[in-house]
Parts: sequence; C-alpha cells; structure tokens
Amino acid sequence: MVTNTEVKELGHFINSEIVPGKSGQFSDVFNPCSGSVIARVPIATKQEVQLAIEAAKKAFPAWRALSVGKRADIVLKFRQLLTERIDELIELICTESGKTIEDAKGEISRGIESVDLAINAPHLLKGEYSVNVGGNINAYSAKVPLGVVAAISPFNFPVMVPLAITSMAVAVGNSVILKPSERVPCSALFLSELWKEAGLPDGVWTVINGDKDTVNELLTNPTIEAISFVGSTPVADYIYATGSKHGKRVTALGGGKNNMIVMPDADLEQAANAFLGAAYGAASQRCMAISTIIPVGEETANHLVKILADKIAKLKVGPSTDKEVDFGPVITQQSKDAIIGYIDRSLEEGATLVCDGRNPDIAQNSNGFYLGPTLLDNVKPGMEIYEQEVFGPARNVVRVATLEEAIQLINEHELGNGVTIFTNNGAVARKFTTEIEVGMVGVNVPIPIPVGYHNFGGWKRSKFGEGHMFGPDQVRFFTKAKTISEKWFEEDSTSSTTFAFPSNND
Amino acid sequence: MVTNTEVKELGHFINSEIVPGKSGQFSDVFNPCSGSVIARVPIATKQEVQLAIEAAKKAFPAWRALSVGKRADIVLKFRQLLTERIDELIELICTESGKTIEDAKGEISRGIESVDLAINAPHLLKGEYSVNVGGNINAYSAKVPLGVVAAISPFNFPVMVPLAITSMAVAVGNSVILKPSERVPCSALFLSELWKEAGLPDGVWTVINGDKDTVNELLTNPTIEAISFVGSTPVADYIYATGSKHGKRVTALGGGKNNMIVMPDADLEQAANAFLGAAYGAASQRCMAISTIIPVGEETANHLVKILADKIAKLKVGPSTDKEVDFGPVITQQSKDAIIGYIDRSLEEGATLVCDGRNPDIAQNSNGFYLGPTLLDNVKPGMEIYEQEVFGPARNVVRVATLEEAIQLINEHELGNGVTIFTNNGAVARKFTTEIEVGMVGVNVPIPIPVGYHNFGGWKRSKFGEGHMFGPDQVRFFTKAKTISEKWFEEDSTSSTTFAFPSNND
Amino acid sequence: MVTNTEVKELGHFINSEIVPGKSGQFSDVFNPCSGSVIARVPIATKQEVQLAIEAAKKAFPAWRALSVGKRADIVLKFRQLLTERIDELIELICTESGKTIEDAKGEISRGIESVDLAINAPHLLKGEYSVNVGGNINAYSAKVPLGVVAAISPFNFPVMVPLAITSMAVAVGNSVILKPSERVPCSALFLSELWKEAGLPDGVWTVINGDKDTVNELLTNPTIEAISFVGSTPVADYIYATGSKHGKRVTALGGGKNNMIVMPDADLEQAANAFLGAAYGAASQRCMAISTIIPVGEETANHLVKILADKIAKLKVGPSTDKEVDFGPVITQQSKDAIIGYIDRSLEEGATLVCDGRNPDIAQNSNGFYLGPTLLDNVKPGMEIYEQEVFGPARNVVRVATLEEAIQLINEHELGNGVTIFTNNGAVARKFTTEIEVGMVGVNVPIPIPVGYHNFGGWKRSKFGEGHMFGPDQVRFFTKAKTISEKWFEEDSTSSTTFAFPSNND
Amino acid sequence: MVTNTEVKELGHFINSEIVPGKSGQFSDVFNPCSGSVIARVPIATKQEVQLAIEAAKKAFPAWRALSVGKRADIVLKFRQLLTERIDELIELICTESGKTIEDAKGEISRGIESVDLAINAPHLLKGEYSVNVGGNINAYSAKVPLGVVAAISPFNFPVMVPLAITSMAVAVGNSVILKPSERVPCSALFLSELWKEAGLPDGVWTVINGDKDTVNELLTNPTIEAISFVGSTPVADYIYATGSKHGKRVTALGGGKNNMIVMPDADLEQAANAFLGAAYGAASQRCMAISTIIPVGEETANHLVKILADKIAKLKVGPSTDKEVDFGPVITQQSKDAIIGYIDRSLEEGATLVCDGRNPDIAQNSNGFYLGPTLLDNVKPGMEIYEQEVFGPARNVVRVATLEEAIQLINEHELGNGVTIFTNNGAVARKFTTEIEVGMVGVNVPIPIPVGYHNFGGWKRSKFGEGHMFGPDQVRFFTKAKTISEKWFEEDSTSSTTFAFPSNND
Repeated sequence: MVTNTEVKELGHFINSEIVPGKSGQFSDVFNPCSGSVIARVPIATKQEVQLAIEAAKKAFPAWRALSVGKRADIVLKFRQLLTERIDELIELICTESGKTIEDAKGEISRGIESVDLAINAPHLLKGEYSVNVGGNINAYSAKVPLGVVAAISPFNFPVMVPLAITSMAVAVGNSVILKPSERVPCSALFLSELWKEAGLPDGVWTVINGDKDTVNELLTNPTIEAISFVGSTPVADYIYATGSKHGKRVTALGGGKNNMIVMPDADLEQAANAFLGAAYGAASQRCMAISTIIPVGEETANHLVKILADKIAKLKVGPSTDKEVDFGPVITQQSKDAIIGYIDRSLEEGATLVCDGRNPDIAQNSNGFYLGPTLLDNVKPGMEIYEQEVFGPARNVVRVATLEEAIQLINEHELGNGVTIFTNNGAVARKFTTEIEVGMVGVNVPIPIPVGYHNFGGWKRSKFGEGHMFGPDQVRFFTKAKTISEKWFEEDSTSSTTFAFPSNND
Repeated sequence: MVTNTEVKELGHFINSEIVPGKSGQFSDVFNPCSGSVIARVPIATKQEVQLAIEAAKKAFPAWRALSVGKRADIVLKFRQLLTERIDELIELICTESGKTIEDAKGEISRGIESVDLAINAPHLLKGEYSVNVGGNINAYSAKVPLGVVAAISPFNFPVMVPLAITSMAVAVGNSVILKPSERVPCSALFLSELWKEAGLPDGVWTVINGDKDTVNELLTNPTIEAISFVGSTPVADYIYATGSKHGKRVTALGGGKNNMIVMPDADLEQAANAFLGAAYGAASQRCMAISTIIPVGEETANHLVKILADKIAKLKVGPSTDKEVDFGPVITQQSKDAIIGYIDRSLEEGATLVCDGRNPDIAQNSNGFYLGPTLLDNVKPGMEIYEQEVFGPARNVVRVATLEEAIQLINEHELGNGVTIFTNNGAVARKFTTEIEVGMVGVNVPIPIPVGYHNFGGWKRSKFGEGHMFGPDQVRFFTKAKTISEKWFEEDSTSSTTFAFPSNND
Repeated sequence: MVTNTEVKELGHFINSEIVPGKSGQFSDVFNPCSGSVIARVPIATKQEVQLAIEAAKKAFPAWRALSVGKRADIVLKFRQLLTERIDELIELICTESGKTIEDAKGEISRGIESVDLAINAPHLLKGEYSVNVGGNINAYSAKVPLGVVAAISPFNFPVMVPLAITSMAVAVGNSVILKPSERVPCSALFLSELWKEAGLPDGVWTVINGDKDTVNELLTNPTIEAISFVGSTPVADYIYATGSKHGKRVTALGGGKNNMIVMPDADLEQAANAFLGAAYGAASQRCMAISTIIPVGEETANHLVKILADKIAKLKVGPSTDKEVDFGPVITQQSKDAIIGYIDRSLEEGATLVCDGRNPDIAQNSNGFYLGPTLLDNVKPGMEIYEQEVFGPARNVVRVATLEEAIQLINEHELGNGVTIFTNNGAVARKFTTEIEVGMVGVNVPIPIPVGYHNFGGWKRSKFGEGHMFGPDQVRFFTKAKTISEKWFEEDSTSSTTFAFPSNND
Repeated sequence: MVTNTEVKELGHFINSEIVPGKSGQFSDVFNPCSGSVIARVPIATKQEVQLAIEAAKKAFPAWRALSVGKRADIVLKFRQLLTERIDELIELICTESGKTIEDAKGEISRGIESVDLAINAPHLLKGEYSVNVGGNINAYSAKVPLGVVAAISPFNFPVMVPLAITSMAVAVGNSVILKPSERVPCSALFLSELWKEAGLPDGVWTVINGDKDTVNELLTNPTIEAISFVGSTPVADYIYATGSKHGKRVTALGGGKNNMIVMPDADLEQAANAFLGAAYGAASQRCMAISTIIPVGEETANHLVKILADKIAKLKVGPSTDKEVDFGPVITQQSKDAIIGYIDRSLEEGATLVCDGRNPDIAQNSNGFYLGPTLLDNVKPGMEIYEQEVFGPARNVVRVATLEEAIQLINEHELGNGVTIFTNNGAVARKFTTEIEVGMVGVNVPIPIPVGYHNFGGWKRSKFGEGHMFGPDQVRFFTKAKTISEKWFEEDSTSSTTFAFPSNND
C-alpha cells in the first residue's frame, strides 16, 4: 500500500476520456486511515452535467441497436478485467474508504456477482410470444432500453454499488451516468478505465463528479429516464419524490436498522461470532450491518452480553495496511463526531455501556477517523440510537421476553432493510420469516444480503419505488415493455368494421 | 332497457354493505343518451374515506393469510357470476355511459380476460428458490401483498378498467379500494355485489365515491401502499407526483393520441374499415382509440380520404337502445361542447373538413349528448387538434410522404399509448415495430390493445411509473419481494467471525 | 347411494358419443363394497382403437387452430360443470372404487387443481421473443401441440388422475385419448359427458375401454405422439420402453414405497395421527400412501408403536355408504388375496405382527373385498414386504438408530416417489430434504403430494421419462418447440454469401 | 498450419489425465485435406468405459455439493481459456475435419454461445417457491443434477457440439462423459485440457474414445442417467430406443433434409447467395445445411437455376490451408464414394445435372477427399436423393407451383430439422411459419439455427425425445425436480387424522 503524499486532481469520465473539471470547485478526498487529503474531486457545473448527458444521449441509439449478444461480450470482457486488475481496485478502495483488504475483496466479489448477472442479459431480456391470440393475430413483447439513466452511489461501497446498479443497465442497452460519492471517486474512475478497455463505445458509460446541484440536474433533466440511488433514507425520500415529480422512474434505497434476534435455543457462541462481523465489519458503515441484537429472554440476554463483552474487548481497530485489524476508521471526522454524539445521548436516555469505543488507543497516535467498538445494553424503542440509522460502530442490545415481542418491535420500526434470527427450530424460523415486515431476511446467517442472482431490496422507508436495482428484476427497471399485436391478412380475407370493443374472437 | 324515471340515490360499498353517503353532497349521474339524471352519487368526506381505509386495513391480515388457492377460488366464482349476470351489467354500462350494447359486451369480455389472469395467481405468485447458494445457505423469495391499495378508474370503461386494475390486486392478497368515476358509479357498485356473492370477506373490496378531495385522501393517506390510476395525462402526472411524494408506488395511465399509418401497398378498403371502428367506436372515448390516420404518399391519401368520406356518411349515431347505431353520445354536455370547440379551432388553424359531425340529425330531437363523426384533413403538427387528446368523434388525417416521416412524427409526440400500421410488407412492419416509440403497437390490427395475458401500457406521457397494472406484470406491481437466506447449522459446525463483506464461498 | 342391481353395459366415447363395443368381449366392473358386478365394460378391438385415433386425428387441426383463449374458455366451463355435478361424480367414484365419500371429495378437489392449472394455458403456452439477436434477426419460439396423445390411467383415482394427465393436454391444443382402468370406467365416461356439455368439439376427447391389447395399439400406432401413464412400476417400465421404441415421448409414473421418518423430537401423537391417514386412507391404494414408518431410536420406536397399536385398533373399515368408516375395501378379491399373501410371507421372514387386519369383522357378513389395518414391526430391507409396493392396508415399521441410517435406507430402495419426516428441527429438515433421493418430499406433512401448481413426479423407478404430466411443466410435455429466426431485408441491403458457420454478428 | 508427418497415439481423458488405451485396438484419424493418417485413437474396452464411469460417479457428490456460483466461476474461466487459445482449437478442427479456417471460427463462436448460457446456470437453476399453499405449508422445488451423464458427438462439429451438449450439464452439477466421434477426437481432448486448467475437479469431465461397443456400454450401464446424442437419424433412433429401454432419459438428434423456399417476390440474387453458403458450406456436412431449394413458380425456378449455375461455377474447393477456398473435403473416402453414388442414382431416377462436382480439379492432384459442388434440378419426392440425408455437396432443386405445395411437400417428409423461406411478404411468412412442420424455421435467413439462448431441436425423425440439449431448456434435461412440501407446527397446534385425500384447505 503506497502512501499518497501528493494530492491528485481528478476529473470526470466523458466520452471515454478523463476530462478535467471546469468549475474550479473541488471537494477533498481523504484517506480515512491517515486523515490526510489524497485527491481533489471536481464539482461539476450544470453545464458540464448537461454536456455529459448529451454525450450519453448521442451514444444511445447505436448502443441500443447492437445485438444483446455483442453487448454481453463487452460485459464479459469487463468482468475478466475486474478479475485481472483486482489488486489495483483493492488498493483504491482501501485508500479512499479505509476498509480492510479482506473487506475490499469481499465487496469486489459481491460486485462481480452483479456483473455475472448482466452477462445473462440475452436470456433475461427475452419477451413473451403468443401464437394466434385470436383473429390470426400473434402477440409478443420486447423489453426495450430506456435511454440515458443515472445512478447515484454512496461512499460505503466504492465498487460494489456502482457495479450492482449499472452493469445490467449497460448490458440491456442504456447509456449510464454514474455520480459516485465525492468521498470515493477514484474507484469509480478506475471502473471507467476498465469499461473503456473492454471496448464499450464512447458515451455509454459516464462518471460525473459533483454535489447536490449535480444530483439535482440529473433529477430534473428531461433526458434522464431513470434514477437509481443508494444512500440514506432522507435523501432517498427526496430523490424519489423529486425524480418522480419530473416523470422519471426512480428506485431509491435508503438506510437500514437491522436486527438480529437470538432465540434461547441458539448456540450463543455462534450467534455472538456472527454478530461481531455483521455489526462492526467495515466500521458498521453498511446499510445491511446489524445494528441491534435482540436476545429473547433474560437468561439469553445476560449470557449473550457477557460473551459479547469478552469478544469485543479483543477486537482490533486500525488502518487498511495492517492485516490484523478487524475494521478500520469511519469515513470522515464529522461522521466520527456524530457517532460519539449518538452514544453520549443514548447514555443520557438510559442505555448502559457494555463496551466503550469512543476513544480507542489508535486515536492517540493517528489523525485517522478511528472509533472502537461500542456496545450499548438496555436500549429501548424511542431512544434516538434505537430509531436512527447510526453509520458507525455503536451497536445496541434490546432485551425482549418473547419472539412475538421481537417481531412486533421490528415491524413497528420505519425501516425494513434486513433482519436475521438465530435458532435451531424450524417452526420459529417459519413464523419469523412469514411475519416479519422486512425485505431481506436471514435465518442463521450474519448478514441477510441475498446472493447476486436474487433480488436485493428493503421494505418500508428503506426502499422507495417499485423496482429492483440489484438482482434479476433490475432488467425490468432498466427497460420498458413494447407489446406488439401482429396480423397478416390472407389473400382471400374479407374486411368489415367493428365498432364494439375488440375481444379475442377467432 | 328500462327508462330510469326516478333518480336513485347511491352509496358507498364498505365492509360488504352499501352505505349511504354522510356528506350530504352528491354528484349527478346522467344517461348520456337522454341527457336526464338517473342517479345521484355521494361525495365522500375525508372521514368516510378514512373509515373505508380502516375497514380495508382490518380485513388485510386474514385475507393475506388465506392460501392463494382459496383466494383464487373466490375469483373463479366471481368470474362465473360475471358471466351469469352479464345482461344486468350490459344494461348498467349502456345506461350510465351511453355505449352500444355490442360495445358494452366487448368491454366486459375484455374485463373478464383480466379476471381470468387473476385466476392464475397461484402460479404467477411463485417466488424463486435456490439450493445452496454457498455456505449451506438456501435462498428464496416470496411475493407478498402490499396491504391496502387504491384504484381510480375513468368513465369510459365502467367495468373493464375496474376489473383490469383490481382483480389481480385482490387475488394476490391485497385489500382494494376502488374510486370509480363519478359519471359511472353504478357498474362499480354492481361489481361489488358480485364480489360479495362470490364470498369475498368483508373489507377486502371497497367502493368509495367522490371527487378530487376523495382522491387526494387516497394519495396522501399513509395506509394506502399503492395507487393505480387510469385517466387523462395531466391528472395522471399529478397522481404520480403526489402519490410518489407520499412514498407510495404509483402507476398512472394517461391519454393517447394514437395513429394508424396506411402504406401504399395496403388494401385501402380494409384499412378504412379498420379505421372507422377504431376511430369512432364508443364515440372515440377510448384511450386506445385511433385519432389520426396517416396515409403515406399523396395518392394513398387522396384515395383513402375518398373512401373514408363515403363510409363515414353512412355511420349512424344514436342511443344504446337502438341496435342499429354505430356509436352513442359522448359522456356530458361539457364534453360535447369542448369537442366542438376543438373542431372549430382546427379549421381556423388550417385543417379542412371532410365530414362534419358537429350537428347530427339526432341532436335535433334529443337532449342526449350526441355528436356525429367528424373527419379533418390536412391536419399538421402544432395544431391543437393534433397535439391534444380529443375524447370525442373528431378524427384527423395527417399526410406524409414516407414511412420515415410518419415514424418521426409519431416519435416526436409527447404521448405514446398505441399505434398501428397497415401494410403487407414484412420489412416495413419490422422497421415500424422496431423504431416506433410507442408502448402498444399493431400491425394490420385496428386497435393494438394487447390480449389480457400480455402487458398493457403506453410510453412517454401516456404512462407514469415503472409498473404494469394490466397483464402478468401487475403481480409485481401489487406485491413486494421478500428474499430469505436460510442456513441451518450442522451439529458439528464450528463458528468463526468474518468481518469482510460476505461472498458466496462454500 | 343407490344399489346397482342391474348390470349396465358401457361403451366407448368417440366423437362426442357413447358408442357400444363391437368386440363382444367385456370386463366386469365390481362394486368392491358389495363384491357384486355393477357394469360390463367393452374391450376394444384394434380396429375400434384405430377408428378412435382417426377421429382424434381429424379433430386436431381445427382444435389446434382455435385461439388458446377460446380453448381455455371451454376448460373453464368444464371446471364449472365439475363443481356443479360433484355429487354424481362422488357416487360414481364410491361405487366403482369403494372409496369413502370424503376421500372421493378429496380426490375430486385435487383433480380440479389440475383443471385450474389448465385454465392458465394462455399464459403457460407463451414462447420467448428476442429482438435483434444479430444481423437484424428477431428470434422467437412457440409451443405447439403434438397432435393425438394418449393417457392411460389406473383404478385408484378414477377422476383425479384422468383430470391431472389430460386437462392441460386438451387446453394446449391436443386431441386426447383416455384409456381408463377397466375397473373404474364409469367415472371417465362421466367426465366425457361434461366435456361435451362444456362445448369441446367432437373428437378432441375420447375414451376407449379395453385391456393390454388396447394399450399396445396406443403404444405402437404411429399417429399417437405421446403417452402418459400412471400405474405400477413394471408396467410403467414396459410402457416407457415400448412407447420410446416407437419414437413417442413417454412419461410413465410407477409405484411408490413411501416412508415417514419420525425423529425423537417429534410430537409422536401428531406423527401417529398423520401416519394413520396417510398409510391406511383409501385402503392404502395410493401411489403416495405411506407404507413404512421409520422411527429414529429405540425409545421413539417403542413409544410410537404403542401409540399406533392403540389407534389402529379403533379404525373402522366398511362400505362407502357408511359415513363413519375410515376406509373401504380393496379393489378386487385377487388384490385382497395378494395382500394377505404379503402379510403371511413377511411373518415367515421375521416381521412381527402389531395389528392383524387379515380377517376383519365386516368380512364375516359381506362379499366386499375388505381388509382391516395391518401393522408389521421389525420389518427389514430384503424382506419382500419391504421391497415391494403393496397396494393394500399392510404397513411396516422399520427401526433405525440414526437419521443417516434412515436416509441411506431410503436412498438405496429402487423406488423414490414420496417421503416425509416429522421433526421440529430446522437443521434436520434441511439435511433430510437435501440428501434424500426422492422426488416428492414432505416435512411434517402426512402425504407429500405437491399442490397442483407445482410439479408432481417421483425419482428412480417411480417415474420413467424426463417429462412431468402434472403441474406446470406438463405444458412442455404436451407441446413441442418451434424456434423461428426472422429477418427482413431493408431495401438497400446488399447481399453476399457466407460459407462459414453463422455467428451472431451485427 | 503444420503438416502432421508423424502419427500421434491418442488416449482417453479420465480423472483429469490423458491415459493410454489398453485394448490395443485403434482407429485411424485422417486429415481429410491430404488423406493421410494423423493420429490413432484407442478403442476403449468395456472395462475402460466402466472405470471411466466409476471415476465420474466418484466425482459427482462433491461437484453437486459445490454451490452453483462456484461451478459457474469454473465455466467462466473455461470460457476465457477458449477465447485465449482459439488459434490452437482452429488448427485442430481444420486438421481433423478439413474445414476452412473461417468455418472453424464460426463453429467455435457458436459453441461459445452454449458456454455463455451455462454461465447463467445460477439463474436458470432456480426452482419455484410458494408461501402457504394451504395448511401452513410452503411448497418449493429444486432442480437437482442427475449424476453421471453421457454425451455422444458427431464428426462434423468437433468443438461446437461437445460444447453445446455438455457445458450446461457440467454447470448444473453433473459428471459428464463425452464420447466424441472417432474421426475427430483431438478437439475433444483439447477441450479436456482447458477444463482441467479452468479448475474442474477430477472426474467431472471425461473423454472416452471408442466405437459402437463403447456407446453400447454407455447406453446400458445403470450408472449413466442420461444420454445426449447428435448424429444420423437411424443411429439416433437406436440410441433413443436402447437408452430408454434401460430407463435413461435420452435426447437424440438425427439428420436433416432442410429446404429453402424461394417465393417469386424474393430478391433472387440474395436468395441464391444465401443458398450457396447454407448449402455447400463445410462441404454440406451440417445437419442444418440446406439440401434442397424450392423455387415457387416456373419463372422463379428458371431464373434462379440460371443464377445458381453461374455462381456455383465460381466456387472453389480446397484444403483448410488455402484461405481462398469456399469449402473443403468430405470427411472420408467412403463418404466421398457414397455421395457420388447418390448423384449417379439420382440421374438414373430422372434428375438433371446443373453442376457436376463428382470430379473436381483438385482431386487430380490430391489424396484428399474432395468433391465439387453438385446441383441437381427436377428432383422429385420419391427419389433417393430427395428422401435421404446426403452428407456432402450434392444439392437439389425441387420445382413447385405454389407455396401450399411447398409446405405440403416439406410436411410430408419424415425429417423436420430446419427450413427457411425467402420473401418480402408478411402474410406469406406467417402462413409459412405457422403451417410448416419443422422445428427450426427461418425467414430470409440462410440457416435457421437459433441463437444459443434459444432452444435448438428438430421435429419428426430429426429429434427423438422430449428434451432439449441446446438452449435454456437443457437445464431441464440435465436435472430432475425435487418438490418439497414443508410445514412447521405451531406450539399450540392440535392434531387429527385425515383419511380423505388431502386438498389445499387452510
């Protein structure tokens, strides 16, 4: 891992070229492990965004007209390049997000699952065909690309989310404009280089860097047909309402407040191990992170908290360059400060501190944005730390008496991204998976993220919009249906007029 | 057909009972054939809407919990009742909408196609199942009903649209609130009786009558999970933006300005016959009506207009009770006045009058809202009558020189509901179906409405939202996906913690 | 239930008419409850079979050419008639098969599930459509009916099996010839009347009665495109080999030797109750009947056998007319004798008798073919009663020490139709469902027969042939795929010759 | 292209190693361009086949247990290697089959389409999942690999057919034994090396070389679960009957006698160019080659034959090493002699010779098995050359008066692999594609082979068995369905016994 001593000036990626920003405005990109600025990312002006959109629009007709097999060949080549140049990608992720190397690998591996699904586009794009639906008419349908679509991705998965929400969009024939988080633009620009090397035509893939104004142009520009967004719930809500108001189709993924229920019959050692990784991995900066563990029954709770306290004490926080560390820093100093604020207020509201990570050892000797693992017991509904998504390593224990109580609590929360349960009992698992009002559900798995060929998406205020951006249903999101009714007259056919509404007569 | 001499006071249908309105406010329901008021429909207060929503919400858990097979059995029974009581339905449609009997039959037949599709719910509801996606995890998905959903339907299909946008919603386990057009509430209330007789539990099916305030409560009430709407484009736009802003999933179908291209190689007699029914049927009050015929080449145009003029002269306009008439009145006096205004202004803008229906014979002796068939030649882009959807029997001829010109004109219009072409040439058909930017496309068919087991929906400003409300994709619209990752520990499993993002390792 | 005092002479159903047999040869149809002959069914000559096939062949082109929607309407009407005339059907089933009334109802209900699936034919028949697979070619596929297909059904489900293996065949456009068991021809002929009343055209549905020679003509006649068979394994093997040798597609379902594993953690009372119905219902004459219960662990076994002995002692055997009885007689005297032989020999081989049903009370006063419930303990692999399918109420207990041993035993048996397990443990259930080599698997269900919209079919020597005859996959069995690659030349296209094998270039 | 001066002794590929043959018996492998022997391929003894089967059987459980994602990763790597080492593959194909380089490239490209489809296995393998089908039961299904399956491939596509009929078999979890044609074993062995390099575990992929006895062992060995075969119709018939008799699932593709109809409105120059490549490419040794051109109308015929005669005179036959040649030699001297015999006898039966390829110039100076292009006019049904598949460059003209006559002729032929039509008329195309009794149909395409993500397969005696081996349906062929009905008791559930047949009650 090299030390980035000089500050690199980044650009946008338009028409297969890196182009410098024209606004003169920049945002700093930090290495969270050191706290130092490693790059400056330009903030696009409205005009720059419009130029990028024009380039994408111009590229669309030829890209759409290419056979899906040819498009899939390019995706396949891109997939191969991702594998071949994985080490460079890992370094970029670690440097700009502060993740551990293993975590970066896991992220890339998951992202590649989405690329693999996009290779299936020729099959997934198929429409339906019916012979003789009546009156010598054949009816059939085609899934047609939308045109120019925009994707807005968050800082916490610099590679996985961009791959997940754009690969299929490209494969089915759209031009895609990615606006990555201004915290992690380097990874997105690197992906651009791979697309270019894979042979993607100019204008089909664009990266535009910027801030809220940039996003607003994407949300309102009439050329943009669809918006996919991953981020926090308030922003997702805004994106969905604004994009919809401008007639676009929008899917916006928001935050999560994901629970792990632990039943009395579970192996508590196993459950605790699962919790640690799912809760604190990536410094808890994952929308699928487990934020709350819910032991059922006082005995389970007492036992479990003891096991957790012992294990958390042994966790190691540190920089990506150290292969021994369990997780790294949070993304910014502001984020670190906010998380400490959450912890402080939770204690005022009555939570009790099992493990305190507010001032980890490493913070003494580093300007990195480090926090140690914090565990709060006796957290209750209504407390801020229970209700809000906290994007950092402050995790909760909520004690309940019964499975029913746990299910009710979870169902009453406004977020519904992920949830999991640990038990050996089949009936408990069925009751839980049936009654729980959450989109992604696990049984005895730490993080219930579906494999790439199933659909990803939360419920309630964790996801806005009908569509899926990950998984096979994203083909529907990134295409529109054209339904054709085709009749050919036989030579001896006679003609007459029908004023009644047509039915499928022979 | 009986004469409705007394004015009936209608109610709402809540908890399987007709309940009278409490607001004291009513809207008149006319028989457009006679111009007389046949019923008064109550305007629901906000409180009445909320009570109806509460009843629907209460009914939801038990309805959802019923097996899909049991639900389908009720839909099957409802389907049988529709067939058995079709004569009553026809009379209601004719009386409140002014349609001809044959047209009402056609409408019901198409509506039943949607019910037939809903009988398939057990199959269409299936999720996906994957064994061992890695780490002894099985992954699977379920399509889960949303809860309480609202449907808002227009006057022009008193039965077909309600059946099309609610049958599957019911079958997959939602509670449905229908707000029918205040012009045609009788048919919707009759459907309610059939649902009750079929055994649908109380609260699963609701009809609430009202106006814009009623709709606004549905659009903003947090209990409503989804909105399906069919109506005009400006209202569809409002519905989509407002419903989306309140976090709901919305599909809103707007208007159409549907073209029929006639190629020089087409049998013009055949094309003319097809046009007449598709253009003037139901007094042109269909979102799929053909509003503009586009002959390609001057010779084609001259020949075709002559044929049309002769045929139009023979069309007969009159009341539903007369089996000889080709189409009936428009829905209201205001509508009639508006259509005449469109014609007048088009002439000022340079269109030429081939047939003038502004003052048909029958209008001399009837208070019904009658208009005869009007055909305007030399209509051009930019004219109001070219750009706007006209919901009455004023139709256009637009002359073009080439197929390319016709396609370009159509693609540049803001609406994209339906379109059709008449030709014998396979290459022309492929070019047309490939390049045309319209959702429902016909080749040699008068009205390109897809059969019920294919998806219905326009493009551009003819449809807002990703989802489909008709056809098999509506299962997706009326359900949300729950994805489960399920692992069972073997007895000798060892446990460890993984902080990296999980990938599908074995 | 009327007493059939006179012997009715049955016929065949050809071209929508009952026609008398011409061979002069008949087979007796018994009421197993009384032992008396109630009807005589004709044995078709080769010439009669050929005439029936000709009629079916003649009907095929018009039936195939009808739109699938129109065909589905007839199936829907047939479904309605089944419901309306269910009492007649129940009486026929009870009279010729000896079932209880409740059992006949259950059979019909299951059969109707297959008819319901056939109503879905318009959706299930859809092919696939791909735009521009390369070179301006669109590729699409259609599922086309085969022509004349034959179905051969067994005595034990006079209505369910015929409905299950023919309804979709009819709906997708084939002509179907049913050869029912000569033991139960009355039900099949009654179904024919319903098809006729539903409006099925002449020749599309045929019932031909007969014996092995009749079957052989169906297996070898070149006009028959496909054979579906349900019966015993040796006959299924013969049917598959013979039909395949004559170039037909064949699916032949054979027998079952279905096990119920009972884990130590199961509620033994519950498991015992489930076993009784699944094991002795219909006098055990079901291919999905549980024949062997496998308690895991000696303690489980001892406890369970005791519970079973008590419960079995209270079971009541008797005629269909008695609503109190749990099950009725077996189908023939020969069958009764054979079952007694199996029991006798099992005792010689070392099995021990828990309950002895060889000589039930009712047999003293009735000529019906009654056997009481027999339970044999300590049955072991290698014993005849373990290896062979016994179509009567002699059931086994096999004792094992572990789940692994139970799985291994089941996997080593040549039959693999159904199996079930009773447990509360999720890990046990996953291990079992994953490792068991059986086609239809249950967890805590008595009989693991899938619901009608899932696929029915065993493994190993319980099913011959790739296809499914029940469930959605039967659409594939009863159709063949036509794949079309369609290109239209643009006017300015230039032409050249390619000698290389074509690839999907643009 | 190197000259193979020494004769290489080949082996089998078992457990990831090339092992020498033990029988001492060999078959010569020729370079058809030179007529010289380039290798000797061993003929496996029954014992060697059994050992190979044992190795495959042993490998199966671990391969099946691997997650489908991991298996797909290996297929993806194999796909990459195919691309990287394409030049070696081309040389092998050319050397042992005599194809031109361009033709070999086309073959590989098509073969890779099947590998691409196999990468989709994670998606295509999904089963169905239904929540609460009744009685708190969830029902779901899994597609489970069969075990050891055998593939038997012909000489004419040394790479494409093996890839097409084995890639998905491997991906879904089977062990595969390939028995390639003894004429072209080198390509199959090379593929083996690539599988090994891609990381496929030992025993999952096997190549066994041999003759009819080898095949018979595969057809009868009880461990082999399925057979896929591509070859001539008489052998396909034998394979299907024999494999089926031994209880296996079998799909056997036979020969084709594929027609190209040319309508009077077609561009004859275009049609002629299309015919030349489709008819004579690969020396006509393709089951999808066009063997007969059917001009409709005398005028069309006279004109077309004249154009063809001129064009055929310019075709060049020669060795793979010459980039100018249009096609190469046939596979063996026996094949050459047989084709000349067909031509001779057709002339005796009344056909007329338009172009005579029996003694091409190159044959004067080469021992290669060369034949020039032969075109026979006035060929009629009943002539041997009309009825039989001729695997060499002797092609027919059949003259008909109408489209109906052409369709009838084609429908009456016993083979039904492929067919195509040239026309500009949409109605003609629909009539043709609807009425023609052939599995793969083209409109204005030279060879109607479907793209790899659609299903490949002929009708009538061109394909035996229900299943598809190419295209997405092959997932069904290479797996069997397991359907699970899973119930979990709630704690307070009461239990009772049901003797009636179970229906889906709540």
